Amino acid sequence: MDHLMEKTIHKEEIFKGKVIDVYVEDVELPNGKTSKREIVKHPGAVAIIPITDEGKLVLVRQYRKALERVLVEIPAGKLEKNEEPAMTARRELEEETGYAAQELHHLLSFYTSPGFADEIIHLYVAKGLKKLESAAPLDDDEFVDLLEVTLEEALAMLQKQEIYDAKTAYALQYLQLQYALQK
Amino acid sequence: MDHLMEKTIHKEEIFKGKVIDVYVEDVELPNGKTSKREIVKHPGAVAIIPITDEGKLVLVRQYRKALERVLVEIPAGKLEKNEEPAMTARRELEEETGYAAQELHHLLSFYTSPGFADEIIHLYVAKGLKKLESAAPLDDDEFVDLLEVTLEEALAMLQKQEIYDAKTAYALQYLQLQYALQK
Repeated sequence: MDHLMEKTIHKEEIFKGKVIDVYVEDVELPNGKTSKREIVKHPGAVAIIPITDEGKLVLVRQYRKALERVLVEIPAGKLEKNEEPAMTARRELEEETGYAAQELHHLLSFYTSPGFADEIIHLYVAKGLKKLESAAPLDDDEFVDLLEVTLEEALAMLQKQEIYDAKTAYALQYLQLQYALQK
Repeated sequence: MDHLMEKTIHKEEIFKGKVIDVYVEDVELPNGKTSKREIVKHPGAVAIIPITDEGKLVLVRQYRKALERVLVEIPAGKLEKNEEPAMTARRELEEETGYAAQELHHLLSFYTSPGFADEIIHLYVAKGLKKLESAAPLDDDEFVDLLEVTLEEALAMLQKQEIYDAKTAYALQYLQLQYALQK
């Protein structure tokens, strides 16, 4: 794949934040010319599709500052340093929903925005959900509402653009596919 | 949803680039405390699921500098200023694959990374593909290989992590669902 590769000539650090770092790289293109690439580095994240014994989907409603609006999403959260993604998934599920999962399996991982960012999301399905007596607390800058909905209700939220993000859209399609295969 | 909202107290511009802008905002949380949000602004993009008359999927292989690796993805591209997404979809499909589509329909739109970025992808399905005699040129810093694959071949690429991004994973699941519903 060398005929597609872009070689870094110079890398400038623009910003080092709590969550993201930003770089501008001068690259040599496959044809020998040069260009600039603006790149966001992210620690990676997990997202969980929590399915209750009644077949309902557990969702969280939260304010997304980047969009200046409230979205309904599957539970998700950033990887802590040196934390295994499966551990992050259990922690975020408990913190955001108050559920512990007896079954957790990795479905797939995907980069969310390969054009400018290295964020990867590890997606899990959680079943055998048991409500915890005392739930782990949320991060102190995190505020969410909890919802338990049927697939039909979630699809109606997608129509109304209350659900509006890639990982949750993937989750809804995953459930549609499961139901279609059962028939 | 006011009980979830975060009010901007101060907004600092960190970077204005060719593709992305970066801000740090001080916000007042629902409980009256303050926090910082690191935010990436992006012009938005389209992605296209191109399906040939033989039922094959048209994919592009390209180098992604943010990941320092080659990925295989459905065709995609950023919105130009004042360009309708459907127009961008036709333009990117022609530039990246050399195909014009007789049928183009909007499937859904989703935010890719609502935790830190406002990037939205408008996803289209393209059918009735006709190879153009003289294809529109790619951007001068864009280099891609073209692939036409069956769903099974694409799923094997997902297994091998050659396909590894949200929009393309969504596209493959979309095709799986279409096939499941036909049976």
